[in-house]
Amino acid sequence: MEVRNRYVATRRHIEGAPTEADFEVREETARWSPDSGEVLVRNLYLSIDPYQLNRMKRSSASHLAVDGILPGQRDSPRGCCSPIRPSGRKRIAAYAAGEVVASASPEYAAGDVVAGVLGWEDYTLFRPSPAVLMSKVDASGGFPLSHHISVLGTSGMTAYGGLFEVCKPARGEKVFVSAASGSVGSLAGQFAKLAGCYVVGCAGTKAKVDLLKGKLGFDDAFNYKEEPDLKSALKRCFPDGIDIYFENVGGEMLEAALANMNPYGRVALSGVISEYTGAGRRAVPDLLEVIYKRITIRGFFAWDFLPRFAEFNAAIGEWIRQGKVQVLEDVSDGLESVPSAFAALFSGQNVGKKLVKLA
Amino acid sequence: MEVRNRYVATRRHIEGAPTEADFEVREETARWSPDSGEVLVRNLYLSIDPYQLNRMKRSSASHLAVDGILPGQRDSPRGCCSPIRPSGRKRIAAYAAGEVVASASPEYAAGDVVAGVLGWEDYTLFRPSPAVLMSKVDASGGFPLSHHISVLGTSGMTAYGGLFEVCKPARGEKVFVSAASGSVGSLAGQFAKLAGCYVVGCAGTKAKVDLLKGKLGFDDAFNYKEEPDLKSALKRCFPDGIDIYFENVGGEMLEAALANMNPYGRVALSGVISEYTGAGRRAVPDLLEVIYKRITIRGFFAWDFLPRFAEFNAAIGEWIRQGKVQVLEDVSDGLESVPSAFAALFSGQNVGKKLVKLA
Repeated sequence: MEVRNRYVATRRHIEGAPTEADFEVREETARWSPDSGEVLVRNLYLSIDPYQLNRMKRSSASHLAVDGILPGQRDSPRGCCSPIRPSGRKRIAAYAAGEVVASASPEYAAGDVVAGVLGWEDYTLFRPSPAVLMSKVDASGGFPLSHHISVLGTSGMTAYGGLFEVCKPARGEKVFVSAASGSVGSLAGQFAKLAGCYVVGCAGTKAKVDLLKGKLGFDDAFNYKEEPDLKSALKRCFPDGIDIYFENVGGEMLEAALANMNPYGRVALSGVISEYTGAGRRAVPDLLEVIYKRITIRGFFAWDFLPRFAEFNAAIGEWIRQGKVQVLEDVSDGLESVPSAFAALFSGQNVGKKLVKLA
Repeated sequence: MEVRNRYVATRRHIEGAPTEADFEVREETARWSPDSGEVLVRNLYLSIDPYQLNRMKRSSASHLAVDGILPGQRDSPRGCCSPIRPSGRKRIAAYAAGEVVASASPEYAAGDVVAGVLGWEDYTLFRPSPAVLMSKVDASGGFPLSHHISVLGTSGMTAYGGLFEVCKPARGEKVFVSAASGSVGSLAGQFAKLAGCYVVGCAGTKAKVDLLKGKLGFDDAFNYKEEPDLKSALKRCFPDGIDIYFENVGGEMLEAALANMNPYGRVALSGVISEYTGAGRRAVPDLLEVIYKRITIRGFFAWDFLPRFAEFNAAIGEWIRQGKVQVLEDVSDGLESVPSAFAALFSGQNVGKKLVKLA
């Protein structure tokens, strides 16, 4: 079987904030045969995530965990995490949901709906193996398909694992969430409220701040762009100090949070989006704060919690059903909207999980 | 009873590297009476520790945990951790060992030898309470008195707790120790060897490097002052990466260690001496390293392990008796040598634990 496949590629390595011009949509013919052992998936929803930018840089610590993405999708020396065509050509891998069109594997049949690591393209071929993150979507929960790549996908896993496994919140603890209207922050803050914590978030517009304090039920929120001094802003919001910081931003926000943390505070380092777009933009933490307050800073990402994916999703799914967790999805239409959707993440234009729905 | 008491005081707040001229030895009359409830101790050995410098600054995150020290020993609004005279006047508190001269407490008798928080002075008065860290020295172990304020005091607790409780080393893991010839580093490295780890230390002279590789049994060591690039030096010493970093230095050393760490690496943040003498000298870590390698950075200090002090010391004492741990003590004579002994810590002149023996 042959299908005409469009895919998104980078035109060059990206070192600053991405723009639409950094990408192009290409076409190719994808070939599947019954003796290939492969599964052909028509993608339906693509996940658009900030961490992808690190993969697109020439050099990044992220390449330790996931391969860098080469301009124009040339061959790569390693295949980790990325679907690889029989030709050895790579795509921009992404968490996505799709429908099996043809399968040469006994594990999948045409018509199955799957979620896992697919790609920014119309069709993805994958060869089932324990190393490929892929699962059939359990439709019995009655959730929209998009939820399976947002709140029931990596965003939910990151928020749930980061909060409950990394931070271990106790009732009454004070929790600060940065980028709180984003895909992970919006969930981490709501989960912390459900854990009985006092929760304050920050975001970059008044509308987002209103959303946090209204629909999402945060105890308080502030617009960091209107605060001349982040340390003072956090002091105002946390007169008794911060016990847990769910960190999505980095830079000065981390410095300010550390300065306001209580003894034995925990920092869950989920992401540092403010540092992704500038190699020189870094947090310069006062390590004496970390020592004398016995703070723990721990980096993590969603894959760390894979063995507990089903357990986490059972808990999250129940909260959604009970109306205790609001799911924010920001959906663009069509593969050609991927570049603008991705660029928008870095200019603060999205609210909640950014997704692209394919026609 | 009245005794003529000499004590070391700061002349001013100290913001850079300390010099002898920053201190002066003063005299006063210390008064003890049988109805005071207090214990009068003649100090025999004083501990000289780098962290004390942070207490002498006008402002420091360390003041969150222990009071700042005011020039000339004026009154302080809080009394945490520091022995306070009936007059409310404070001394530079320090871990020390001494002999009880007079006691108005049923818990102590003249002639008892004690170790705990005393001060940089000839005599210290304290009022026994659960908040005062003090214990009678158990002479049955047969160790020199000095050991009770070095390897069996806070240095040993910091090294043992930091390594075994914070880092949880597994056999065969690769451990890097900075300031490895210092009071804590020299012990942390030896403990890591006893845990079956591969251990590399750094220090600032050839003699110290030889000491690490020879007497202390480190697998390797390097002189950081002769390395043009710390990242390359660590790459050379750890071709398979670092699993555990026992951090005593901060600044560029932390950045270089993070760049060479393996996934799930642990950083025990014991001290950052390179940052103590310059407010602007800071580590600028690449947080992407921390996230993608899922590194944990944890600040701690000796007091955290107080409930397990006896357990730790039993293990350490046994190792000393078996000749498995070498104890390095660098002893100066006389109270008047405290300022120069303290200043020497920051110019790398000491080897092992710096102590002052009082006449």
